[in-house]
Amino acid sequence: MTILLYDLVGEDHSRPFSPHCWKAAMSLAHKGLAFRREPTPFTAVPQVEGGVSKTVPVIRDGDRVVADSFAIALYLDEAYPDRPTLFGGKGGEAMARFIERWSQLTIHPYLGAAALADIHARLAPADQAYFRDSREQRYGRTLEDVSAPRAEGLAAFRSSLEPLRGMLTYQPFIGGDGPLYPDYVVFGAFQWMRIMSPFQVLAADDPVAAWFERLLDLHGALGRTVAAA
Amino acid sequence: MTILLYDLVGEDHSRPFSPHCWKAAMSLAHKGLAFRREPTPFTAVPQVEGGVSKTVPVIRDGDRVVADSFAIALYLDEAYPDRPTLFGGKGGEAMARFIERWSQLTIHPYLGAAALADIHARLAPADQAYFRDSREQRYGRTLEDVSAPRAEGLAAFRSSLEPLRGMLTYQPFIGGDGPLYPDYVVFGAFQWMRIMSPFQVLAADDPVAAWFERLLDLHGALGRTVAAA
Repeated sequence: MTILLYDLVGEDHSRPFSPHCWKAAMSLAHKGLAFRREPTPFTAVPQVEGGVSKTVPVIRDGDRVVADSFAIALYLDEAYPDRPTLFGGKGGEAMARFIERWSQLTIHPYLGAAALADIHARLAPADQAYFRDSREQRYGRTLEDVSAPRAEGLAAFRSSLEPLRGMLTYQPFIGGDGPLYPDYVVFGAFQWMRIMSPFQVLAADDPVAAWFERLLDLHGALGRTVAAA
Repeated sequence: MTILLYDLVGEDHSRPFSPHCWKAAMSLAHKGLAFRREPTPFTAVPQVEGGVSKTVPVIRDGDRVVADSFAIALYLDEAYPDRPTLFGGKGGEAMARFIERWSQLTIHPYLGAAALADIHARLAPADQAYFRDSREQRYGRTLEDVSAPRAEGLAAFRSSLEPLRGMLTYQPFIGGDGPLYPDYVVFGAFQWMRIMSPFQVLAADDPVAAWFERLLDLHGALGRTVAAA
């Protein structure tokens, strides 16, 4: 049965952009499972599956509804053990949590701020109002003021990727010879940026950029089905 | 057969201090393997096992000699598959490399600089001369100048531990419910500091400090067999 993925979109429903929804989409593709992406604007999230979660992704797989990208990945490995693993065992399940926290606490703050005004510009009007109100309350500044200093922060951001760059001198993916769930975790962040902002965060000769291109190529080039901003 | 661990020491041979040798010692204890620590000062490293490695740890297990803490952990899981796993599967082996790079590139630079003069003070005279020459060439400054600004850098260092702190809101160890090799990787760094410097890098109420205490308690409180500086 086709799995339903509630997938965050802006004004253009053919351009899903949420980093967390991309983690789920890549996980579903990794497992070789058929899925359909249900375009879900910000203001439609509270109605998803009767309000099961404050955020997307949410998936429906037959009778099962699962929210949260990490929980979805764990669910998929448990429900479909005969398909390619997302974690490569119990050790991988545990260590992936550290890498997820590293991505969320190291990569997301800079990218989220750098792309903030660009994201707003790509939302439908009703979502723009929600987005501006909620984000300006969170940051205590206008969206434009949050995004403005992105060029000054770029060198420090690139430097913060050193652990990823160092890992890539040993192996082509965080998962080793092939990708595993934490590759999709970090991929989601860069894919969010790629789809919503023309600001180039990775230097062309950065090994992290080459890794990201490898991720874009996976699963029938799923990541390339949405063009860069 | 008892495994031999060549273990870096200063003037007091009963106080092994290398972060990387502690990774190997904790790995051997995790596997429940009998081992003997061979005290090895800096200037004795080139003679270890006929000069097999520029650094310690090196282990000898019967006819096998293995250098490098990560390679030693992989070797132990391969050679002793029936004993408790250090990686929890292939996914864990791959993801541990990212965490090892994170530790080396995030934690080690600050701790290494903060402890540099304190480490020198605890070495035997011949090792002191080697250590001062090689480290002052590496840093381009005196040992004392490298260590001096440690208090100013402390807040930023503590902030850099956020991924570890965030992970600890989900689970007690990087390995999940129990420790795995990447716990020993990060432990090694803090143990190095604990043994060689009285400078307190973790606030008492930091969840990372509680995690470190849990690590010190493991394997018959192996980490506590050397008192804090």
